[in-house]
Amino acid sequence: MRYALSLVGLLVPCSATWLLPQARNFIYIVPDGYGQASQTIARDYVSLLQNGENADAPVSIKLAADEMVIGTVQTLSSDNFITDSAASATAFGCGVKTYNDAIAVDDDGQPVGSILEAAHMEGFKTGLVVTSTINHATPACYAAHVKDRDSYEKIAEHEIGYSHPLGPQVDLLLGGGRCYFKPQSDSTSCRSDDVDLFGFAKKKGFRVMQDRKAFDELKKGTAKAANLPYIGLFNDGQMMYEIDRLRKPEQEPSLLEMVETALNSLDRATKWTRKGYFLMIEASRIDHAGHANDAAAHLFDTIMYNDVMKFVREWIDKHPDTIMMSAADHETGGLTLNGFDPLPLKEVSMSIEEVERLWEDFNGTDRRAYLADTILPGYGLSGLNESEIDTILSNDDLESDLTSRLSSKAGINWSTGGHTASDVTLHGYGSGWRGGNLKADMAGNWDNTELPVYIEGVLKVKMSKVTEKLRAQGTDWVGKRSEGGSNHIHGH
Amino acid sequence: MRYALSLVGLLVPCSATWLLPQARNFIYIVPDGYGQASQTIARDYVSLLQNGENADAPVSIKLAADEMVIGTVQTLSSDNFITDSAASATAFGCGVKTYNDAIAVDDDGQPVGSILEAAHMEGFKTGLVVTSTINHATPACYAAHVKDRDSYEKIAEHEIGYSHPLGPQVDLLLGGGRCYFKPQSDSTSCRSDDVDLFGFAKKKGFRVMQDRKAFDELKKGTAKAANLPYIGLFNDGQMMYEIDRLRKPEQEPSLLEMVETALNSLDRATKWTRKGYFLMIEASRIDHAGHANDAAAHLFDTIMYNDVMKFVREWIDKHPDTIMMSAADHETGGLTLNGFDPLPLKEVSMSIEEVERLWEDFNGTDRRAYLADTILPGYGLSGLNESEIDTILSNDDLESDLTSRLSSKAGINWSTGGHTASDVTLHGYGSGWRGGNLKADMAGNWDNTELPVYIEGVLKVKMSKVTEKLRAQGTDWVGKRSEGGSNHIHGH
Repeated sequence: MRYALSLVGLLVPCSATWLLPQARNFIYIVPDGYGQASQTIARDYVSLLQNGENADAPVSIKLAADEMVIGTVQTLSSDNFITDSAASATAFGCGVKTYNDAIAVDDDGQPVGSILEAAHMEGFKTGLVVTSTINHATPACYAAHVKDRDSYEKIAEHEIGYSHPLGPQVDLLLGGGRCYFKPQSDSTSCRSDDVDLFGFAKKKGFRVMQDRKAFDELKKGTAKAANLPYIGLFNDGQMMYEIDRLRKPEQEPSLLEMVETALNSLDRATKWTRKGYFLMIEASRIDHAGHANDAAAHLFDTIMYNDVMKFVREWIDKHPDTIMMSAADHETGGLTLNGFDPLPLKEVSMSIEEVERLWEDFNGTDRRAYLADTILPGYGLSGLNESEIDTILSNDDLESDLTSRLSSKAGINWSTGGHTASDVTLHGYGSGWRGGNLKADMAGNWDNTELPVYIEGVLKVKMSKVTEKLRAQGTDWVGKRSEGGSNHIHGH
Repeated sequence: MRYALSLVGLLVPCSATWLLPQARNFIYIVPDGYGQASQTIARDYVSLLQNGENADAPVSIKLAADEMVIGTVQTLSSDNFITDSAASATAFGCGVKTYNDAIAVDDDGQPVGSILEAAHMEGFKTGLVVTSTINHATPACYAAHVKDRDSYEKIAEHEIGYSHPLGPQVDLLLGGGRCYFKPQSDSTSCRSDDVDLFGFAKKKGFRVMQDRKAFDELKKGTAKAANLPYIGLFNDGQMMYEIDRLRKPEQEPSLLEMVETALNSLDRATKWTRKGYFLMIEASRIDHAGHANDAAAHLFDTIMYNDVMKFVREWIDKHPDTIMMSAADHETGGLTLNGFDPLPLKEVSMSIEEVERLWEDFNGTDRRAYLADTILPGYGLSGLNESEIDTILSNDDLESDLTSRLSSKAGINWSTGGHTASDVTLHGYGSGWRGGNLKADMAGNWDNTELPVYIEGVLKVKMSKVTEKLRAQGTDWVGKRSEGGSNHIHGH
C-alpha cells in the first residue's frame, strides 16, 4: 500500500489513530426503532419532492444522516436475539447486556451506572431531549434504575432526583410524560400517589415548563430564569407525531426546536466551566409508528430525525469541541420496501393515532360521510369506491385496515407489530471527522455495549464509579421485576 | 476537538486524508442479494454453534464481514426505486445509473466501459469468480455489453472475447454456466447455435476446465498449464448452493477454494509485472436463496461469504498492495427477523432446490414415506404430525409450503420473492485500514455508481477510455432490449 500525494507540495501535521479523540461535549442521538429501510423511505420521498414526482426516474440524493454513516450496531439482549428498548438503552447507555425490560440494571437486577450519570459525577452538564414520555425506556436508562420498564412513576422520581440515591442527575429534561409528574389529586395526573414531582423540581431549583408558551419564553430568552436546570414536558402522554404536530405547531415544540434550545442552554451553562456536557436526544416515535405499522408517521418522524442530524452537524462545525454518535436501539416493524413507491405518502396529513382519536371523538350522525370526506383523505386514501368504504366501515379494526391499505399503496411491507433482530446503522460526527481520524475511530460494526465505553474514553469519565456508589445504597430502591416479562418487543 | 496521546512518547509519520490510497491490486466482492438481516442470521447462528445452544442466552460475536463494515450503499436504478442485479452491477461495475435489465449499457443502450475492462486496458490482470452461471448479470457487467440481461449466449461470447469488440478482457473465469460455452451439437449445450466457446477459448490460449478434477489439478499446481488465462465452469447451470455442496464436495469446488486458487494465480502472474490485478468475486446464490425464500440455503451461502471475507482479509495482510471493497447489489426477499431463533436451521441439510430435484426424481411407490423419511428431515422439518404431512402432500406447491414452514420455525419473515429498495452494507479492507486513512476514505454512505470511481483512483485507470473505444464500434453488437422489461426484481 502506498499513499500518493493528490495535492502538491503540502505536508500538514496530523494524528495517528493511537491518538484517541477527546472532546468537551458529547451528543448521543437515538432514532428509536429506525431501520435501514426507514432511511431509504425518507431519502426517496425527499428526492421525489426535490426532483419532481416522476417516479419512473428516481434520483439518488443524500440526507443528513447519510452523510454521517460509519457502520452498524448489533442489538441482541441477554435473553433474546430481539431486544426491547430497555435492554438496548441499558447496553448503549450503561455498557451492560441485560434482559428485556431492564432499566439500567444488570441480569441480577443490580443497578449499573450510565454514561450520563458518569458525566454528571465529573461535573459535566447533562440533558435528555425526547418526543416520547420522558420516563419511557430509552431516556429512563440514563438516569433511573428499575427492574421493570413499566415502573413509570418510579422512573419519573429517579429522573428528577426525587428518589435517585445520588440526587438529581439531569440538568435539562424535555419531552412528554407530564402526567407522571403531577400528584394524583390533579385530574390530569397518572400517578397513584400524592408525590408532586413538579413541586419537588421547583424546590430543587428547576424551572418547570408545561406548555409551548413557557417553552417559547425559554427559547426566545425572555424567560427570567432561562438557566439550567429546567424541565419542560409538553404533553401528558407521548408528544405528537411530527406529521400531526405540523398541523398544530402552536401546541408543542418540534424535536428540532427542543434540540436547538437545549444545545444553546448547555453551551451557555458550560461556557466558563472546566467540563462540557452530555446530551441524549431521542427521536422516540419512529418506533411507535413502526409498532403501529403507520408508514407516513414513520416517514415524517424519520425526516425530523434527519433535520436534527443536520442541525447537530452544523452545530458541531461551529462548536468543534463536540462529538456526536447516533444509532437506533433496534429496528421496529420488520419494514421492507418490496414494491416501493413513496408518492402515495405525500397525500397523508395525519397519523393513524390521530385518525383513531378523530374516529372516537366523532359525535355526528353520518359516520360514513365523515369516513369518506375527512378520515380517508386525511390518511391518504381518497378515491376508494363505495364497496371499499363499506368494507372499512364494517371492519372492527380501523387502524389495521387503513395502515395496511396505505402501506400496500406505497409498496412497503411490515412483518410485525414488534421489533426485529437486525443490526442498525451507526452514524458519527466531530470536527476530526473530515480529517479522517475520528471517522476511522468510529467506523465498523459495534456491539451496542461498546458504544458508551467509547464515550467514556472521549469524556474521560467512568461508569463503574457510578455503579459503585449506586450499589452502596442496596437494591430495594430499584423495585421489582414484573412476572410477565417483556411484551415490548412484540408490540406496545 | 483535541487528540490526546494514548500511548506515551511515540510520534510516527502518518498521512493526511488528502493522500489518496493507491494499490497494485483491487478485489471487489459482491454478496448478491445479501441484506442486513442476512448477516444477523449468519452471526447469531455461528454464535449458537460456538457458545452452546441455549437460545435464552444469546452471545454477541463478530464474523469476518462484521470486522470490515464501513458504511452503506444506495441501490436504486434509473427506472425503479428497486434495482435488479443488472442495473446495480452496471452502477458499481461501470459507474453509470441505468435501467433494470441493462448489462453495461446506459439508458440509451450505449455501451459503458467497466472497471475490469479499464484495468485490463492498462495492463492489469483480471478475473471473475462466481457461483452463478458466469454469464449471469453481475459478472456480465464487467466484461459484456448487452441491452438485455437475458441475452445469455451473447454475454458468454463477450466474456470470453469471442465477440467483444476489444477481444478477451478477462484472464480468469470461474463459476457455472458451462452449457453456454458448448455448441448446440453437444447434448448438454444450452446454445441455439454452433458457436463453440470452449474451442475458441482454447485457441486463444485459455486452459479450459469443466470439472472438479481439472480444478484440483490447477489448485494443486500439478496441471501443466496452470498459468493464466483459464476458464473453469463446473456446472451447466448455477453452481450448487453451499448447503448442498457440503454433502457432495467431490462434485464442485467451493467459492472459497476458487477464490484461493484465483488469487494465487493472479499473484503469480503479476509477480514481476508493472501492474497488478482486478478480481471480482461474487457469492451469487445468497440472492437465489432469497428469491426462493430458502432460509438455510441463504444462511450457508452467507457463512461462505464470510469465510471468503476472512480469507481475503488474511490474504491482504500478507499482500499489502491490495485493497478490498464489498457490498451487495441489493437486498433480496425482504428478509426480517421478527421472532428470530436460528436453532431450527441447524437441522437442515439441503436447499429447497435439492428438495425439488429429489421430489421430481423420485420414482418409488410410497411417496408419502419418502416425504416423511427423507425430504422433511433433510429440510429440517422432522416431527410433523400425520395431518400436516397430508396437507403437504395435497399441496400443489411443495417449495412454498416447506420454505414457509421452515422460516416460520426459525422466526424469520420474507416479504417478497423479489428484491427490495433498502441500502446494503459496505465493507472494505486494505493494509492502510488499521492505520485509519483507508478506513476513513471508505467510510460513509455511497451511491453505488461512486464505488468504481473510487477504484479508478486507486488503480489509476479510466473507464471512460474503454467507453470511447467501445462506442467507436457502433452499437449493433450490444443486441436488443427485450420488450417485456425486467421481471428480475420480482423473481427469477
